[in-house]
Amino acid sequence: MAQIKILTEAELRDLVPLDIDAVDCIEQGFSTLAGGKVVMPPIMTLMVPDHNGEVCVKSAYVPGIDSFAMKMSPGFFDNPKLGLPSTSGLMVLFSSTTGVLEALLLDNGYLTDVRTAAAGAVSARHLAREDATRACIIGAGVQAKLQLKALTLVRGIESAVIWARDAAKAETLASSLREELGVDVTASTDRAGAVSSADIIVTTTPSDIPLIKAEWLQPGQLVIAMGSDQEHKVELDPGCLAKATLYVPDSQAQCALKGELRSAIAVGIFPADGRFAELGDITSDKAPGRQSDSDIIIADLTGTGVQDTAIATLARQRAENSGKGTTFSS
Amino acid sequence: MAQIKILTEAELRDLVPLDIDAVDCIEQGFSTLAGGKVVMPPIMTLMVPDHNGEVCVKSAYVPGIDSFAMKMSPGFFDNPKLGLPSTSGLMVLFSSTTGVLEALLLDNGYLTDVRTAAAGAVSARHLAREDATRACIIGAGVQAKLQLKALTLVRGIESAVIWARDAAKAETLASSLREELGVDVTASTDRAGAVSSADIIVTTTPSDIPLIKAEWLQPGQLVIAMGSDQEHKVELDPGCLAKATLYVPDSQAQCALKGELRSAIAVGIFPADGRFAELGDITSDKAPGRQSDSDIIIADLTGTGVQDTAIATLARQRAENSGKGTTFSS
Repeated sequence: MAQIKILTEAELRDLVPLDIDAVDCIEQGFSTLAGGKVVMPPIMTLMVPDHNGEVCVKSAYVPGIDSFAMKMSPGFFDNPKLGLPSTSGLMVLFSSTTGVLEALLLDNGYLTDVRTAAAGAVSARHLAREDATRACIIGAGVQAKLQLKALTLVRGIESAVIWARDAAKAETLASSLREELGVDVTASTDRAGAVSSADIIVTTTPSDIPLIKAEWLQPGQLVIAMGSDQEHKVELDPGCLAKATLYVPDSQAQCALKGELRSAIAVGIFPADGRFAELGDITSDKAPGRQSDSDIIIADLTGTGVQDTAIATLARQRAENSGKGTTFSS
Repeated sequence: MAQIKILTEAELRDLVPLDIDAVDCIEQGFSTLAGGKVVMPPIMTLMVPDHNGEVCVKSAYVPGIDSFAMKMSPGFFDNPKLGLPSTSGLMVLFSSTTGVLEALLLDNGYLTDVRTAAAGAVSARHLAREDATRACIIGAGVQAKLQLKALTLVRGIESAVIWARDAAKAETLASSLREELGVDVTASTDRAGAVSSADIIVTTTPSDIPLIKAEWLQPGQLVIAMGSDQEHKVELDPGCLAKATLYVPDSQAQCALKGELRSAIAVGIFPADGRFAELGDITSDKAPGRQSDSDIIIADLTGTGVQDTAIATLARQRAENSGKGTTFSS
């Protein structure tokens, strides 16, 4: 009989807040990915066309971590009509040595939210100007909120402007973040202005048309594009990538299929067989990050199985240490 | 808070025995697959080379079934040295309408064993001679046992010969199956003789060299090759497929990558762009099965996500009806 640890969303929210430890955990994952021994298969996607749904499965085996996660992320985009969130899901943790099921993390997508926001912080820590204080967030969903919080963990953010297609949602989010983070957060309907005047721009939408134009980008900026994670999504005009001093994918193979890199290759801005240093190459000092205060840098985040394995292992370890969770035999 | 049903291996063994209902359930799955509206993504495989392990993920959305399964099947082949079985795993059931997690089937691979054996029975029901009485089983593992049991559900099996690389294991299995099934089961070290004198041959090994030669095959036989499910595995000499009157894959796309079809295409017996009626086309009467008592037919079973969704849904339904399992909130 195997002993399986089951952790609920509420327990996981207690165990793994979005804090600097979570950022360090995800950074360590990226650095290991750059070591070349991580095994990360292509993302599996099950489409459920009859219900406007899709489920992605991500996983990675990371040498040196005793467990590996398999994460299932359903996104059913008619759910809000039923009063349910669009996204949910869970992570399953297996022993790296025996494949035996160790833990079920019933997080309804919470750990994904944390590890995704943490990757934004890792990008900012290594690619933003040290003196960056002004953020611009495109979008007003869960990641809009968490990405701004993540930025405050690694840079002295003093102000932020939120733009969203739904201006009322942007206002509401700005108001709640002002309170929560103690930062001067405002909403704006002037997207060009919001982007142009920021040090760090984070795009967090499921858009399938570009939202950021190349002419809006200014020397010294960092753009973190984390919304696109499917073949049909895009947030940046491909010209942004042409204008950038440095383009940094989380995983080049994934970004070429599902990130901003896809469109840039399609229109010929980058060759299909180009080779970019990935975020992990930079966090592990195998490649340089920002070289000058005037560099324009774009980080393209599609979300990697390494992040899932890293955050799930952290959650399970903390559950063991604190005695949290339910033990189940099967 | 979502209500999630958790079922243990012991509960699942009670709920879903290998019986004619399980065979009917799997047959229905194959028939639906032939309708063309099933969504079945390619199998995801995570290799864990440091520990001689691999994990396969299978899934399928089947219109008309309210849930879909995602199945994770670890195979860690050094486990026996640690006193553990090589294979384990679980199935996760989601709502087809909302993607919400509904049930965790902690079956340690049991439901896979049942749905795999049931596919053998479906093949025999539609492709074996009506008067088939003599079986030959190649291999002496769990599937060797279950496949023979499955054959007895659909044909009047009177005798069976078991051949395995480990002759002692074949003897032990023959002895236990004689008792369990009330069939004249014997072990043999004469593989050619065992194959030649059977009406139905089932190959159940993880072999990476062919075990069955074309010249051993006789008119009227059905060969069910269910061992090969990875790129490096093969059980039949490709000449067998050339000699067969009819070749039936469970999923042509999968068999071309992971089944016996792979080698047959590689050596030029079949063109890469050929088109075969699949098992579901035959169970749903879209294509003919056995036409004559002298046909030699080969069924190539790699295992499909449709079977997983079908058996997992059956298990969950029976658990609901009987009040079995543990309900968990998250």
